[in-house]
Amino acid sequence: MEITKFAIPEIIFGRGSINYAGQCALRHGAKKVFLVSDTGLEEAGWVQRVMDILESEGINWVYYMGVTPNPRDFQVEQGAEFYLKNGADVIMALGGGSVMDTAKGIAVIASNGGKVSDYEGANKIERPLPPMVFIPSTAGSGSDISQFCIISDTQRRVKMSIISRTLVPNISIVDPHILRTKSERLIIQSSIDALAHAIESYVSRIASPFTETQSLKAIDLIMRNLKPAIESRSLDSLEKLSIASTSASMAFSNASLGMEHAIAHSLGGMFDIEHGVIHPILLTSVMRMNLDSCIPRMAEIGKVILNRREKDDRSTALAGIEKLEEFFTSLGVAVKLRQLIDEESRGSLEQVCKVAVNDACNLTNPLDATWQDMLKACEEAW
Amino acid sequence: MEITKFAIPEIIFGRGSINYAGQCALRHGAKKVFLVSDTGLEEAGWVQRVMDILESEGINWVYYMGVTPNPRDFQVEQGAEFYLKNGADVIMALGGGSVMDTAKGIAVIASNGGKVSDYEGANKIERPLPPMVFIPSTAGSGSDISQFCIISDTQRRVKMSIISRTLVPNISIVDPHILRTKSERLIIQSSIDALAHAIESYVSRIASPFTETQSLKAIDLIMRNLKPAIESRSLDSLEKLSIASTSASMAFSNASLGMEHAIAHSLGGMFDIEHGVIHPILLTSVMRMNLDSCIPRMAEIGKVILNRREKDDRSTALAGIEKLEEFFTSLGVAVKLRQLIDEESRGSLEQVCKVAVNDACNLTNPLDATWQDMLKACEEAW
Repeated sequence: MEITKFAIPEIIFGRGSINYAGQCALRHGAKKVFLVSDTGLEEAGWVQRVMDILESEGINWVYYMGVTPNPRDFQVEQGAEFYLKNGADVIMALGGGSVMDTAKGIAVIASNGGKVSDYEGANKIERPLPPMVFIPSTAGSGSDISQFCIISDTQRRVKMSIISRTLVPNISIVDPHILRTKSERLIIQSSIDALAHAIESYVSRIASPFTETQSLKAIDLIMRNLKPAIESRSLDSLEKLSIASTSASMAFSNASLGMEHAIAHSLGGMFDIEHGVIHPILLTSVMRMNLDSCIPRMAEIGKVILNRREKDDRSTALAGIEKLEEFFTSLGVAVKLRQLIDEESRGSLEQVCKVAVNDACNLTNPLDATWQDMLKACEEAW
Repeated sequence: MEITKFAIPEIIFGRGSINYAGQCALRHGAKKVFLVSDTGLEEAGWVQRVMDILESEGINWVYYMGVTPNPRDFQVEQGAEFYLKNGADVIMALGGGSVMDTAKGIAVIASNGGKVSDYEGANKIERPLPPMVFIPSTAGSGSDISQFCIISDTQRRVKMSIISRTLVPNISIVDPHILRTKSERLIIQSSIDALAHAIESYVSRIASPFTETQSLKAIDLIMRNLKPAIESRSLDSLEKLSIASTSASMAFSNASLGMEHAIAHSLGGMFDIEHGVIHPILLTSVMRMNLDSCIPRMAEIGKVILNRREKDDRSTALAGIEKLEEFFTSLGVAVKLRQLIDEESRGSLEQVCKVAVNDACNLTNPLDATWQDMLKACEEAW
């Protein structure tokens, strides 16, 4: 095994853990918290809840809500200006991947200056960031755990992957209660995002013993708990999805991802499609394409999905992929690319793949994937 | 599930990872590293190796070697004086549990003042500690990962457990190469310490989904790799023991331990016995005593040890404990307390248990253990 690194934030997990938000901020010297969230969380009452918690600890706050799905570079740059103007310190994100990635981008620009695109790629951030305390509201993106930050470059219409250990938040507060106020659609999307994280990190070229167990555990928990969670909304099932997402995030943050996420970022940048919608469409096509590069690992994934082995590794892997396809179909989500993109835009897929091949996530894909391989996966998923 | 916390250091793991020691110190602002190690590591050439690595990065160092097995309070207090006098910054420990716990103790006293005994128990440390970069030389104590520090109080002849999140080092550099220069005796002792960490954390009252997988994985790796590692000294087997120890440490640091470690600390304090010698003697007696409080969990442990299930949970658990006893016997280590303690000192066991019952580790034991329960376990292990 080569040298491997494993870094995660301090995690505070469980029902009611949101109540620790103020104490966590204080531990990092908070006087004026920069709170980032969005209208959905305002409407569900969670933003007010966090404000109350901060106030009860005697902490001032300033609230920034300039967040949209697929956060844009200019939103981040405006947010950084707002942060500096207000003399805020600890950055607290309350939301899904878009909110948390916006908050991370603000942390980078506020402390390192320049534009978001200056930091695209791996390890480009030089100066330390403000303390970050994150409260994820979905069980999927893993931005609260990971060293990833994904921001759209509005001019180039691409999603930039910014990867740096310094982007790992100081503290992640994971409270499954928040999932209760989420729509079925969002729970499915974010859980499948976590599933894609788990699968891609498990077959990553830099997977390690510290990430592998987390990946497999996440796959198991999502396959067994996503449907019960949607049907019953029981806190037990939602909590298991939160555990799965946290585990998958520990894995992908340290083992990175693969070509499915590379294509998903590029597609999302080009067509402004929500990230979680793309995985049920692309994931199994990419798994088939990667299969020959990592048969034993795909078989382990298959074994977890199926809860049994077939006669050999290849059969187990394939049966797992088929079961996964059935699973996605049974969830009633789009499973073909043509359900998202017009026929007349189909020709843009070549450009999507030419961008995707340079996405940092593609570096760790088990197969040395060319843009032509990616296009083939997209066409199979069409 | 109640609210649970999970905190670990950044981990740099793998063959040759020691070469990152200088860069890691620099990342934490090192100008003059305070290096703590012992004569064994000097003789094996590792201390010089670290000094060379630091010098090649242009970092000054000062070397402290006042370390013995079962480190004493006064050694720590002297070390802190030496640290302050020399104007050192980053504390780097290179060694086993004794070296690392000495280094942690020095970090506490140098930054918080007072005596070691002022910090006995949980969460008594108030001011931040100097940055700590640790390089474990054994695969067992887990002090490089954990929030624990065990120091002997020489006046009271007890081992003090100091537990605080701030005792988690900033970076743990785990290089399996170092294990190659360790004696068979030390590899066995430290692996069985890791095994005890894994087992006690798995049945702990505050085990969480984030610690449970780590515990079971460690048990599996140690059962399958300890003998091959001793026989072949292959780097592959030694690496697996390092992975096991790191995993077990992630588990016990966050789920804590149980009455076996409580008794082991007390015995070690009273008789100055090396910590790793005690587990093969006490562990299975304590497991039998705890069994009825946690049958399903003991059955999971049994399943991992045996690689199969028996007809019911209780039988699986018991068969696992028996197999573990055979395993210890086959390693040729002491498995009875009378092999360590004279008959005339047997009467002191009551005092040992009366101290142990107040050890912080006993708080998370699945059975609400009294000193009489502990004495019974000791007598069974006599």
